Amino acid sequence: MNNFLEDLNGRLASVIDSDQFVPLHNPVFEGNEEKYLVDCVRSNFVSSVGEYVTKFETALQDYTGMKHAVVCVNGTAALHVSLILLGVEVDDEVLMPAMTFIATANAVSYVGAIPHFVDVEEKSLGIDVDKLEVYLKEISEMRDGACYNKKSGRRIKAIVPMHTFGHPVDMDRLHTVAERFSIEVIEDAAESLGSYYKNRHTGKTSKLSAVSFNGNKIMTTGGGGAILTDDDDLAKRAKHITTTAKIPHKWEFNHDMVGFNYRMPALNAALGLAQIERLDIFLEKKRALALKYKEALKGMDELKFFEEPEYAKSNYWLNAIILKRGYEYLRDEILAITNENGIMTRPIWTLLNKLEMFKECPKMNLDVSESLEKRVINIPSSAWL
Amino acid sequence: MNNFLEDLNGRLASVIDSDQFVPLHNPVFEGNEEKYLVDCVRSNFVSSVGEYVTKFETALQDYTGMKHAVVCVNGTAALHVSLILLGVEVDDEVLMPAMTFIATANAVSYVGAIPHFVDVEEKSLGIDVDKLEVYLKEISEMRDGACYNKKSGRRIKAIVPMHTFGHPVDMDRLHTVAERFSIEVIEDAAESLGSYYKNRHTGKTSKLSAVSFNGNKIMTTGGGGAILTDDDDLAKRAKHITTTAKIPHKWEFNHDMVGFNYRMPALNAALGLAQIERLDIFLEKKRALALKYKEALKGMDELKFFEEPEYAKSNYWLNAIILKRGYEYLRDEILAITNENGIMTRPIWTLLNKLEMFKECPKMNLDVSESLEKRVINIPSSAWL
Repeated sequence: MNNFLEDLNGRLASVIDSDQFVPLHNPVFEGNEEKYLVDCVRSNFVSSVGEYVTKFETALQDYTGMKHAVVCVNGTAALHVSLILLGVEVDDEVLMPAMTFIATANAVSYVGAIPHFVDVEEKSLGIDVDKLEVYLKEISEMRDGACYNKKSGRRIKAIVPMHTFGHPVDMDRLHTVAERFSIEVIEDAAESLGSYYKNRHTGKTSKLSAVSFNGNKIMTTGGGGAILTDDDDLAKRAKHITTTAKIPHKWEFNHDMVGFNYRMPALNAALGLAQIERLDIFLEKKRALALKYKEALKGMDELKFFEEPEYAKSNYWLNAIILKRGYEYLRDEILAITNENGIMTRPIWTLLNKLEMFKECPKMNLDVSESLEKRVINIPSSAWL
Repeated sequence: MNNFLEDLNGRLASVIDSDQFVPLHNPVFEGNEEKYLVDCVRSNFVSSVGEYVTKFETALQDYTGMKHAVVCVNGTAALHVSLILLGVEVDDEVLMPAMTFIATANAVSYVGAIPHFVDVEEKSLGIDVDKLEVYLKEISEMRDGACYNKKSGRRIKAIVPMHTFGHPVDMDRLHTVAERFSIEVIEDAAESLGSYYKNRHTGKTSKLSAVSFNGNKIMTTGGGGAILTDDDDLAKRAKHITTTAKIPHKWEFNHDMVGFNYRMPALNAALGLAQIERLDIFLEKKRALALKYKEALKGMDELKFFEEPEYAKSNYWLNAIILKRGYEYLRDEILAITNENGIMTRPIWTLLNKLEMFKECPKMNLDVSESLEKRVINIPSSAWL
């Protein structure tokens, strides 16, 4: 191990302080998890009907300040349904960062639409809105009130900003540009439960947003997600479409559209209710951990600790270090050494435009994403650290 | 209440013997459910990775005698993935009974294929294979080894027999016809876990089958399903496609196709493991209950109790009475009276060809389905009765 690697490993180890292998993120169950699960089983309602579903949805509404939360099987399903609800159709294009988890692009594929990749900014790791605006002026034209890609001829129907590692995109600026081009906004808030943009919970500024409760998230339901909205009609339709579009009736089976079996079982909602009761504690611990990393990594020439943008209060879901330009060659050495030493680290996702099935999708110049892909490394971030 | 209704209500009540409202089917948790759930939470692995997933898959394999079981979020997802794995594509037609739950047709819609409805026989409530054979001879032609609908010009790629209420379709006859027309078979075994066709578990005679562990099924995981297969390659691909098609790597994120987030969380698998340990007891109780109904309903002129076909040993998931032809007018009175008297009953599903979104789908003459739709009533079937 050279001096730099030894130094970095030592600084991380000083924060982490464990002689066991430390994963990137795992959940903490110190509240009512066991109690609610046992109660759920004893109630006999473990499946799609059950009071825990309603209780968890109410708790989510209270927490996020949203009028409606519709829980479902996972964040991918929440995104899929949101795209349908906002009218994204076969052969539409949907703008999204190239630097995101694959779920964002998969959900777009499920409706037969085409991901259209845009670049991010280093400050938030989210969509670079200024660059987007210049790009849209250049490549799009308005026809009948809708935005069209001049080159492909396809409608650009929506944009899906993703709050990377829990750090909010600058939504006010994004909404201004989206409105100007008549593009619908769906927030991929999978990673940002507990993150605030200008004192509003992420999702609050948009018609629809999708959150995730996967096992690696800030709180978990085992697997699960939710659609958040302030719109009564969208909420009603979200519930309908996630529950096989069945028309309520005492005994008859009638369905009025091709719906989905995307219900969250009450069992998972019971876990979620116990977890959300502890969310403020998780957030406090995670923000304290981020501060410790920041202190420990101070003064390093090769890298910086990634911090929330000035307009945000982030959940610091996954902490990250970013190598400075010129130090890209250190990435794989850091990954190898830290993982060997029991500190799990991980690079950011492979840019989606590089994956076989998305290689032909339209994209803008992705210089910043290309550079960040070689420089971002996630470090252990569990609330128990 | 007239004499007939009073008589029927009394006979049902004598079997059910409860002064509470008795639902159609709810689960029984008398085994290791609470223990495994608590253990799962304490293990910290509640999500998509966790030993309970592997344990439950192994238990399913042991129970069904299948080489592979790949668990997933629900039966609809299991069907969806099975259709993809057998090469069903956009604009293909997929044969299925008009008399089935909507999931069968929805899964076909998800791949952009078109349901093609066929009739059922009264003996099994499943596909009438003789009628199917005559129909296919008439409407299809073989081109390049594939079966085409002469009228629509579309390929008929697959058939999805569904084992209604747990009673197996005559699979040997169905396979003979399917092979003759080069049509792939996927079993919708959502309702038939624990049902045997000629001493083989349902699903065993086909390349792929889909089961469900929804809350109303013979055993539950809250929500969940599984793909069963004896084929190593199909099993590997099923696991891959249900887990976002990620290529295994210590830290890199690469995916080689548009996959799905269809993983069953370990939390749900833990419940499933406890349930499958009790499955033999549930089966015994349910078959005993069916026998009691049979005895209690003997000698009624207006209806018969629905029994397993002679080639099968059924799980009697949902018990059913079938009104004799000429007594259709009694259906709604029976539904009203029994439900009012605390005995939950339900008609069979609305035929899928009558639903708005499937009205234009191709279909054969559906005389038997049309008749049965007016004559089948499900009666309470929980294993605790």
